[in-house]
Parts: sequence; structure tokens; C-alpha cells
Amino acid sequence: MTDPDLLTRLQRLEDEHAITKLIASYGPSVDAGNADNAARLWATDGKYDVEDWQMIGRSGVHEMVSSPSHQDLVARGCCHFLGPAVVTVTGDAAVAVCESLVLLRDDAGAGYRVWRATANHFALVRVGGQWQITTRTSRVLDGQPYARMLLDAGLAGEPAPAPPGATQR
Amino acid sequence: MTDPDLLTRLQRLEDEHAITKLIASYGPSVDAGNADNAARLWATDGKYDVEDWQMIGRSGVHEMVSSPSHQDLVARGCCHFLGPAVVTVTGDAAVAVCESLVLLRDDAGAGYRVWRATANHFALVRVGGQWQITTRTSRVLDGQPYARMLLDAGLAGEPAPAPPGATQR
Amino acid sequence: MTDPDLLTRLQRLEDEHAITKLIASYGPSVDAGNADNAARLWATDGKYDVEDWQMIGRSGVHEMVSSPSHQDLVARGCCHFLGPAVVTVTGDAAVAVCESLVLLRDDAGAGYRVWRATANHFALVRVGGQWQITTRTSRVLDGQPYARMLLDAGLAGEPAPAPPGATQR
Repeated sequence: MTDPDLLTRLQRLEDEHAITKLIASYGPSVDAGNADNAARLWATDGKYDVEDWQMIGRSGVHEMVSSPSHQDLVARGCCHFLGPAVVTVTGDAAVAVCESLVLLRDDAGAGYRVWRATANHFALVRVGGQWQITTRTSRVLDGQPYARMLLDAGLAGEPAPAPPGATQR
Repeated sequence: MTDPDLLTRLQRLEDEHAITKLIASYGPSVDAGNADNAARLWATDGKYDVEDWQMIGRSGVHEMVSSPSHQDLVARGCCHFLGPAVVTVTGDAAVAVCESLVLLRDDAGAGYRVWRATANHFALVRVGGQWQITTRTSRVLDGQPYARMLLDAGLAGEPAPAPPGATQR
Repeated sequence: MTDPDLLTRLQRLEDEHAITKLIASYGPSVDAGNADNAARLWATDGKYDVEDWQMIGRSGVHEMVSSPSHQDLVARGCCHFLGPAVVTVTGDAAVAVCESLVLLRDDAGAGYRVWRATANHFALVRVGGQWQITTRTSRVLDGQPYARMLLDAGLAGEPAPAPPGATQR
């Protein structure tokens, strides 16, 4: 018979590990231009909120990755580089935070330039035994207070605060 | 009754995971300009040794993050991007190593430039069940032999060697 | 007596963790110019296939890191920055995928430029209880379809597809 506390500890490790892996899959998915791989990281009705762009549902993410503008980035050479995530699990819900870079290949092909450096807050749920993103909220690190609030909330394991100007979500 | 070997294995995973998480929290802490979050990663009497700058204690780290020069970086847009850490745990002590980048937003706002690329060696201890940094030693990767020694020692799970010119630590 | 399922779960976490750690050791090894540390990440007869350059065996990797061209990069200041790996273990074999950057210090010393951004596919085996790389296949993210195929195969836990133009491997 197994110590129930042991099972809880093992489960917590597995959960945090699964979420870390899910988040680490985002870059390889979108840099391959693979819309299916990217979309399935989200819950069916999940959201991806980047600056003033709201993608709704897996279909919204799928559309973004399939779009000519994204596929052009891939064809030219781009790298969505996400750092190690810090994950906080509470039962069947979780919060994660990481920073990320987007690099674009120079026209001359001599290297890459860093286009964006971003704060990322993830809210996740366990659905049928699988972790999925319910909301990813991303803001560029340009001094805007909301990007900083996302980092603070992420480290505290708290939901993303409402974006400035939002009357309700 | 649980296999004691199993408990040891689980504990080792938890320890390495906790330390990885602690180190991954540094970037989001300082890029939010959150001095409290950054300072609490260190032991009360921990040290942060960057080039010829020695921060002593949590208060030293807190002061650095609160300083006008750091807060100016945050206001302008900066990203402290730490890679995945390699951790070696020995009982209640540990060593970790990773590389890191500091990116600054261009004045024109068209992107970010990489200001620093750094070798980081961490010595940690478990205090009251919590891992804390006792010494973080960081040197820019500019060919200096000491940066390379930090990487070698970190991978070997050994303490950071004394910096060149140091008579004692 | 311990639940055999529990042991399987613990072992899987340990395996994925060990492989993540192995891959995270690559950057600190080569940026220190430490050929021994880098070579031992590979199986004795492992391969490292980068664009049109094939390194064969640990000795091939050792030679690359020891070469004047690599040691010149280290002396000038370089950073091989690998992101968090996504690992799929199947018994004593595994596949991992991550993206990576190579940064070089500017001649003026004012910062670093990103020279390469790369898709990396790793095939690994467990040899005598130790995970080792059998083949690392890396291609720069410049829009070439093969780089994208490496990312897709890596996320699916599948072997790297044959490179274009290869008649056999």
C-alpha cells in the first residue's frame, strides 16, 4: 500500500512537469508553422491575448499560425524562444509565467534580430487528464505596467489582472 | 510502508525541481522591478557577485533592484532571460549553473539588443525546508577565464573557485 | 511493497529530467571550451549533424570543441543558449526537441549579436543507466523545410526524418 502523501507529491511533480513541457512546445510548434500543434495546447474555448489582439478558442490560435503573416515569418526564418516556466498548480487549475523572445532573420541572412521580448502569464486547467491553456496573456516588456503586473501575478500563482481599460473580461 | 529508496528518489527530483523554479523566478522578478520577489530568492546573508560588484544579503539584492539605474532599465524595457539550470543536490546544499542574457529595448522601440551574455554559478542551501541562494557568481562571456571556470565548476557540482585576485572570500 | 505503477511514473519523471539536464549541459560545456564535457553527452558512436557538417562519435564532437575556430569563438565571447527541451521517453530510447541561439560578442564589446537560431532534434539511448545522445540534428531556422520537419518530428517523439538529398543514413 502506498503512502497517500507520496502520491500527492508525485502528482504535483508530474503536473508541473507536464505544464512546463506544454509551454516549451509552443515555440517549436509555431516556428514549424504547425497550426494543429499550436492550437491543441489551448482549451477548446481558450484565449490568447497579445497586446490589443484577442485570439478566441483553438480556432483563433489555428488561424493566427495559418495566416499569411505568420507563415511569412516562418518562411523568412523566425524563432519564438520561451524561457523556463515557473508553474503553480492548485488542484485542476494552474498558473505559469515565463518570458519569451521573438527573433527574426535579417534580410541579409547574417543573423537574427530580437523583435520582441515579452512577459507571459498562463492560466491552465486539467481537462480529461490533460493540461490545457485557458488564457495566455502576453505583453511586450517596454515599461508598460501591465507587463510587470503579469509577471508579479504569475510568480504569485494568481490570475492575470484585468488589462487596463477593460471594463470586464 | 514506502520503500525508503523511493522517497530518496522523489525527494531528489523535488529538490532539483524547486531549485530550477527558484532560478527561473529571477528574470520575472527583476523585470517586473519587484525587489521583494528578487531578494527572497537569496538567503538572508547570501551574496550576489557580478563582475566587480558585490551585493551582500537580501538587502543588497533588494537595493540593486530598487535602485534608479535598475528601475530605469525596467521603465525603458529590459529582459533578464535565464536558460534552464543544471542542478546538483548534495543533502541540504546544492550547486546550479546556467547561462543568461540581458536584453534592452532599443531607443527607437524597434526591438531589443543583447547587452550581456553571462555565465552564472549558484550555491544554494536548504533553510527551513526552502532552497535559497547563498552565492550567485556571474561573469560576462567575453573570453575571461573565470567565466569559463564558473561553467566548469557548475557542471561538476563544485563550489565557485575564488575569483582572480581574491586573497580570500 | 511499492506500487509498480508508482515506480514507472517516478522513473519516467527521472528519465525526462535527466535528459533535460543533459541537453541543458551542452551550452555551458561548449562556452567554457570544455571538449571533454561536451563529448561525454554523446554515445561513443553518436552523431552531431549540423547543416552539411557531420561529426562522428564523441571524438568528432571533441575535435569540434577543441578546434581553433571554436576556441576562437570562446576567446572572443560566445553563448550557446538552448531553450527548455521537450522530451519523449520510450523505454531505453528517447527523442527531445528544443530551439537554440548562438550569440557572439561584438568586436566593439558593446553587446552580443545573434548569429544563429536553430531547430534541434535529439535521439537518445540509455547506456548502462546513463542517457546519451545518439544523434543530434540541427538546422538553422531560415525557412528551410527540413528545420521545420525536425521540430514536428521532435514534438511527435519521432525519429528525425532523412535530410533532403540523403540516399541513406
